[in-house]
Amino acid sequence: MALLAGTALGLLVTGTAAAGHLFPDCEKGPLANNTVCDMTASVSDRAKALVAAFTTEEKFQLVVSTSPGVPRLGLPSYEWWQEALHGVASSPGVLFAPSGDYSYATSFPQPILMGAAFDDGLIEAVATVISTEARAFNNANRSGLDYWTPNINPYRDPRWGRGQETPGEDSFHIKSYVKALIKGLQGDDPDYIKVVATCKHFAGYDIEDWNGNERYEFDAIINPQELSEYYMQPFKACARDAKVASIMCSYNALNGVPTCASSYILQDILRDHWNWTDDGFYVVSDCDAIQNVYMPHNHSPTREGAAADSLVAGTDLDCGTYYQLHLPGAYEQGLFDDAVIDQALVRIYSAQIRLGMFDPTSSSAYRSLAFANVNTPESQDLALKAAEEGIVLIKNDGILPLQIPSNGSITLAVIGPWANATAAQMQGNYAGIAPFIHNPLYAASQLVNVNVRYAGAPGDPTTGGYPAALSAANASDIVIYVDGSNSGESDDRNLIRWSGERQDIMTQIAGLGKPFILLQMGDQLDDAPFLNHENVSAILWAGFPGQAGGDAIFNIITGKTAPAGRLPVTQYPADYVNQVPMTDMGLRPNETSGNPGRTYKWFNDATVPFGYGLHYTDFSVSVDAGDESSWDIADLLSGCDAEYKDLCAFQSVTVNVENTGDVASDFVTLGFVAGKHGPEPHPIKQLVAYERLFDVTPGSTASAQLNLTLGSLGRHDEAGNLVLYAGEYNLLVDVPTSSVWNFTLSGDDTVLEEWPQDPGTP
Amino acid sequence: MALLAGTALGLLVTGTAAAGHLFPDCEKGPLANNTVCDMTASVSDRAKALVAAFTTEEKFQLVVSTSPGVPRLGLPSYEWWQEALHGVASSPGVLFAPSGDYSYATSFPQPILMGAAFDDGLIEAVATVISTEARAFNNANRSGLDYWTPNINPYRDPRWGRGQETPGEDSFHIKSYVKALIKGLQGDDPDYIKVVATCKHFAGYDIEDWNGNERYEFDAIINPQELSEYYMQPFKACARDAKVASIMCSYNALNGVPTCASSYILQDILRDHWNWTDDGFYVVSDCDAIQNVYMPHNHSPTREGAAADSLVAGTDLDCGTYYQLHLPGAYEQGLFDDAVIDQALVRIYSAQIRLGMFDPTSSSAYRSLAFANVNTPESQDLALKAAEEGIVLIKNDGILPLQIPSNGSITLAVIGPWANATAAQMQGNYAGIAPFIHNPLYAASQLVNVNVRYAGAPGDPTTGGYPAALSAANASDIVIYVDGSNSGESDDRNLIRWSGERQDIMTQIAGLGKPFILLQMGDQLDDAPFLNHENVSAILWAGFPGQAGGDAIFNIITGKTAPAGRLPVTQYPADYVNQVPMTDMGLRPNETSGNPGRTYKWFNDATVPFGYGLHYTDFSVSVDAGDESSWDIADLLSGCDAEYKDLCAFQSVTVNVENTGDVASDFVTLGFVAGKHGPEPHPIKQLVAYERLFDVTPGSTASAQLNLTLGSLGRHDEAGNLVLYAGEYNLLVDVPTSSVWNFTLSGDDTVLEEWPQDPGTP
Repeated sequence: MALLAGTALGLLVTGTAAAGHLFPDCEKGPLANNTVCDMTASVSDRAKALVAAFTTEEKFQLVVSTSPGVPRLGLPSYEWWQEALHGVASSPGVLFAPSGDYSYATSFPQPILMGAAFDDGLIEAVATVISTEARAFNNANRSGLDYWTPNINPYRDPRWGRGQETPGEDSFHIKSYVKALIKGLQGDDPDYIKVVATCKHFAGYDIEDWNGNERYEFDAIINPQELSEYYMQPFKACARDAKVASIMCSYNALNGVPTCASSYILQDILRDHWNWTDDGFYVVSDCDAIQNVYMPHNHSPTREGAAADSLVAGTDLDCGTYYQLHLPGAYEQGLFDDAVIDQALVRIYSAQIRLGMFDPTSSSAYRSLAFANVNTPESQDLALKAAEEGIVLIKNDGILPLQIPSNGSITLAVIGPWANATAAQMQGNYAGIAPFIHNPLYAASQLVNVNVRYAGAPGDPTTGGYPAALSAANASDIVIYVDGSNSGESDDRNLIRWSGERQDIMTQIAGLGKPFILLQMGDQLDDAPFLNHENVSAILWAGFPGQAGGDAIFNIITGKTAPAGRLPVTQYPADYVNQVPMTDMGLRPNETSGNPGRTYKWFNDATVPFGYGLHYTDFSVSVDAGDESSWDIADLLSGCDAEYKDLCAFQSVTVNVENTGDVASDFVTLGFVAGKHGPEPHPIKQLVAYERLFDVTPGSTASAQLNLTLGSLGRHDEAGNLVLYAGEYNLLVDVPTSSVWNFTLSGDDTVLEEWPQDPGTP
Repeated sequence: MALLAGTALGLLVTGTAAAGHLFPDCEKGPLANNTVCDMTASVSDRAKALVAAFTTEEKFQLVVSTSPGVPRLGLPSYEWWQEALHGVASSPGVLFAPSGDYSYATSFPQPILMGAAFDDGLIEAVATVISTEARAFNNANRSGLDYWTPNINPYRDPRWGRGQETPGEDSFHIKSYVKALIKGLQGDDPDYIKVVATCKHFAGYDIEDWNGNERYEFDAIINPQELSEYYMQPFKACARDAKVASIMCSYNALNGVPTCASSYILQDILRDHWNWTDDGFYVVSDCDAIQNVYMPHNHSPTREGAAADSLVAGTDLDCGTYYQLHLPGAYEQGLFDDAVIDQALVRIYSAQIRLGMFDPTSSSAYRSLAFANVNTPESQDLALKAAEEGIVLIKNDGILPLQIPSNGSITLAVIGPWANATAAQMQGNYAGIAPFIHNPLYAASQLVNVNVRYAGAPGDPTTGGYPAALSAANASDIVIYVDGSNSGESDDRNLIRWSGERQDIMTQIAGLGKPFILLQMGDQLDDAPFLNHENVSAILWAGFPGQAGGDAIFNIITGKTAPAGRLPVTQYPADYVNQVPMTDMGLRPNETSGNPGRTYKWFNDATVPFGYGLHYTDFSVSVDAGDESSWDIADLLSGCDAEYKDLCAFQSVTVNVENTGDVASDFVTLGFVAGKHGPEPHPIKQLVAYERLFDVTPGSTASAQLNLTLGSLGRHDEAGNLVLYAGEYNLLVDVPTSSVWNFTLSGDDTVLEEWPQDPGTP
């Protein structure tokens, strides 16, 4: 007997993933006379004309990620799923060539390290390179133009497996970061979107699989206050302010309703409250999330119901096959009408029209981008710079920067499990194929006047690595020990500490008496055992630093570049994971549950705090805010006619930063608001502005402008409304605080933004 | 700059792992005149003479897994670490050839499936093949002769990642299994051990990493009663009765003391109580477990202390490097004396002597085994038979055995994530390189008059697999859906249920109205959603079935072989994991903690019970125990002069098994003791004997002998003593119980075995 023709021992591929991103032929194809091909018509009219040409049967096949297109209309198949978290990335719609042109794309650091740079200009530049490379891939028919990036759920709990994909834990920081990122990805051409970006995962998603709580069925219980002030903030900035073209609804339920089936968040908040209604704005589901509406959420009683409920709620595109399989039945059952499916189709095809897919090649310069624009020398420099800017110096007894003799040589032991880090370790998840991977061992081996002794993973008895590491360390002048922690999708961490075995190995090697530098990579681990350990000379955190990560690390270590990154997350004490279940979404300390509070806003016992980072020089910081120190709330509002009151300007505060040491260095200026205003409990502080100053030379002073808005001062009440309260305010600059400006607001507490209330589960 | 000579970008290998298993040259080498080479001397004298030739410095280098040997004495380097859980396995001491001879070894099913066969003869035969192949590898200088197998910790909790490595949850079953296994591995030559087997992990080890509780530092709190009656039983059988040559101490602590540093378990129980003191019996640590005595257990205040404490407690060999690195310092500090290190060395070299390493090639037939003895046709048949015997039929509405027309053909859909199972899925962990892997899809494709339609993993949107699976199922006469659950080392499960997504996919395909057979592989998952589902025709469990697994599965499915396996574990309901933390070692139900009880002995709400398994025929079972039904305890004891009272014979009970159906079939006869004797709480029942009957033809009756001992009747008191109680006894045969024999014991309760009491933490 035999396998039937048409099947195979490999996977049966029905879609056209990564195989066809050709655009429709608007000149000679069947659609040539359809209004969709008429560049003088409005986007909306063009999309409606296209949708009018579909049969009902066809419509249900077109709202899934692997779209078959409509051959009879010359509408090509299309894969909607591309990834580009930190460079064009391996994903169903991206086809890297096996070698040569298009066999790689620039691989930047993971967002968690780029977040540590606190440099929005850097982020926009990186995103611009990514969108340029994405267009080049598309022009070579090697990718689509819809990218499911960025991940902007705030990094709420240190155990989250996908925290590395985000810029960090702070909602203001993510807002600022994502605005720069979306600008770079979507471009600034008023006529064309460069690539569609997708802010995900909307909303309340930040658990993979913790102690049996799986993302596919987890119901995140979040009160309106914390939903509005924290979880929703990045999406507000992304949708309302940055006007991202796509939003991805998430696996989890939010207060009882799976997000992909929630008209409260997809309609009331996203489209009505944030006015996210431009042509081509569409909602896509996370992959198989529509299925999850049926099982395991058990939200809809039937499969057809789940498909219909999601479509009606406002999920326009299904990553998966549920729409394809079950919308026809749902339609027969009368669970939705033609207007609903047409609306979804108009939205997604409007996006394609705004991407220029129905316009001639000559219509946009984007269409000329080619492999010459991929991984250019400038892009390589930018990948290096992005890693350098993010690296955080956590401890330094003076050993850094390393003095390398210009005559003679020194011997470095470069040892530990991550010394010869793999591509996966250097890049982190959602990576593409990098043109090269310079890991720490490689970069060390490029140094002049430096001999390198390498040993791999001590403690592995199969390699005798433990004695080998001791021996390498013993034979060297200085030890650089490279280790880290990795997590990932579907993989939350249970532990955030260095294991006893690794502590033993490190302290034993440190005990040899050589200067011992801990190069900590990947996710945060509690460094308490080493911070005050007399044998540990320095600690650097380098995250997942991308293709040039090793070069960046050794540029920092040797002082070629001065470190100025700041921790974008709290480094929690090891025991934190025993104090609060990951499933407790509460941010505020809670005596009843024992929740000690989350993020630097509510938790005060960090091992290393959010915003921390040392330099090779000293800085003196002072706020220059002018003489005024009291304002009337009504006056502040009367002077502003912004559409959204939280964006009304308040003050632009100058911070003078003097380099009082000997080394030129960047400096990240961080401004936080604290103080007694509004109801208790008050947060410890809240980041409201930041600016990275570049290359401040010894003896000189540079100035940062912290542009405060009314939103910087507002707090969210229990209903989620943003309120400006009379009371005392403090602007705290730097971490730890080194300069403070105090001021007061008087008058009536005033609502800046009314939060839409959840109608609740039906 | 350059990398120094002697280092490399690869791992620096200091040992000689898998590179040298040559024996010392006792004819012409430096040791030729040492008594160790004198075959007429006693093992002990030979070992002592060898040890006397070592310098103190050399001694500390020889008690680690990657032994450098003593070149000046012509004692070759030696890798002590070999694995062979279900076939000679990839491990530091085993060197498979890249191709040709010695590039593979027979790969039997994982123990969890072989356990389901309840056939000790099978186990001995399998172990005999493994030890033969191991000797062949050794003769070709491709492996050592010390094998760190079997894993006999009882499978206490369904979440345990390494449960698949064990024969199951029942301590009596494991005892019986391991005695057969050790006999096969160590052989029956009074002069030579065939290969050294190692019963692991001694003791109380069965957590990998559950919710942040890591095996390296977990302290298992177990009361003397349950320690003695359950956790220690397999080791008692292995050490005391089967006389295994090696025992591995574990990562965890037991009641406060890391097991590798516990003289209570290594001396008081193992060597004193169980008389495990033959020449060459040695204790090896789990890998890096000596380090763990220092960190993270913090049991010893220094590294030297941890090494000394472990050596003094009775751990003779360190898998790792801690002994090598820290025994010298400990010796200088006076933490142990020469007699202790000499004792360890005498033990491990006595094992080498008993393996024949100091004897000429002509001394033993084992030395002539060669590649012609590897994966012979007989061994291949045995691998097939082992899988067939273990497969358990859980549900059958009559669809099985499948009727395949002799004329014409039928079409089978063979679909699902495990249909085209990988080698890792087919073999499970601690596997070697198999000569071939016949997975379900392969085996289906070999059937005559059967067309196969394959589709991979439904639900994966990148492949359109969901519609493809539906389409394959729709185009077929019968659907065989193959899915499973895998776990592994360092990887406990949090969930023991089929996910909602998978339930949805399966019920949707089952809903097409074709006969739907669920082939469940890997670990157990709660089958409740399918057991009573009218669209699910049959459920087979096939574990990790090894190289011939697919063939075995389809031999069962087509009726070429009749199924007779029985579940060796309880199939727990999904919610069980929410009822008891994995860290709660208690077996008995506990109202205070909410522990609902563990294993079939104490938990009564299984989805599918321990011992369950259907057949293709019907059996009628009756106990024939003779007329006597009451005994006096003193009489029973007076008639027995066995060294260990638990081994005193009680009754050999005949069970008559009549095949009343139409199909010849094996039948596993299971006998349990229950009844009111001894203090409450009483276990539901306890397995005390089993026998597999072979090929019982329709209409015929076969008889099994259940050989009961006094140990079968005894229970353990709170101090851990084994006590024979007066009272009522019931012998329950089969699952569910189909025949019962009741009897009574009278007279004085009598202790059969006094349990050594834990002196406690100093």
